[in-house]
Amino acid sequence: MPSLYLIRHGIAEDRENYEDDTLRPLTDEGRKKTKQVAKRLYDLGLRFDLLQTSPLVRAQQTAEIFTNVFSSPVQQSSELAPEGSFEAWLQWVTEWISQHPQPARASLGIIGHEPDLTTWAETLLWGESKGALVLKKAGIIGLVLPESQPWTANGILFLSIPPKLLI
Amino acid sequence: MPSLYLIRHGIAEDRENYEDDTLRPLTDEGRKKTKQVAKRLYDLGLRFDLLQTSPLVRAQQTAEIFTNVFSSPVQQSSELAPEGSFEAWLQWVTEWISQHPQPARASLGIIGHEPDLTTWAETLLWGESKGALVLKKAGIIGLVLPESQPWTANGILFLSIPPKLLI
Repeated sequence: MPSLYLIRHGIAEDRENYEDDTLRPLTDEGRKKTKQVAKRLYDLGLRFDLLQTSPLVRAQQTAEIFTNVFSSPVQQSSELAPEGSFEAWLQWVTEWISQHPQPARASLGIIGHEPDLTTWAETLLWGESKGALVLKKAGIIGLVLPESQPWTANGILFLSIPPKLLI
Repeated sequence: MPSLYLIRHGIAEDRENYEDDTLRPLTDEGRKKTKQVAKRLYDLGLRFDLLQTSPLVRAQQTAEIFTNVFSSPVQQSSELAPEGSFEAWLQWVTEWISQHPQPARASLGIIGHEPDLTTWAETLLWGESKGALVLKKAGIIGLVLPESQPWTANGILFLSIPPKLLI
């Protein structure tokens, strides 16, 4: 079954120092910890056919760190920006999986923001969100998607690792 | 908030070779992998104030391996046997947490069986079970419980690690 990994961007500069929230970069600590997490996840055997990232600077920089470690192709998706459309993204995923040479082995990583990522994960797992998942900065949640639609309320959570366990 | 870790027993001997299912021991491979998982979890920083185990042999042997690695006290609970009473166990947990010197830091590990463990976890997270969690043999799921009752539908999942990532 296809795997979906939801990854939250690393620790970024304070909101109050940036008029434009989309431009906030990772802090030095955020870069360092994100690199450590990405390397540990690589060592644990995780792999991505594609990394998709929010266009915000802190997500793009996180994606760049992951791409360097995993040698995965990366692409931007405006749906992964805060309050992006889950439905539009799901449509894209449907197409991406259908075009994958081995759909059952497809592995997609998405790098984005809270609370959207855990809301999406819970919707895929249970059909609605009740705030029962937590995703820290540079944390990761792994789901398997069902073999066919509907995607929502049919996923299975198999992975959740707080970054502090990996640093 | 109190932490609850749900741990499934390691790989055990085939059911068909044991007339009494409660007596099935871990296989050599099951012992070895469970030890590796316990050591990795210890290295990752996990700690338990108490390990509670199902009285079945395969669970007790798993608990013994964890106790050796974590130096945690261990006790049996008949509620953790297959089809044990979730309500009776919840009552016990309520009392155990209330007697803990620092309830908010209480950390309990329970070693038991599927499908009970993921059913209990989902009930604590969402109030009902939809088969959206997976727990492999020697795998672990970590939840935080709310500061006060009701426990059900108020938990937050923060950890899920498939043993294959730790071996």
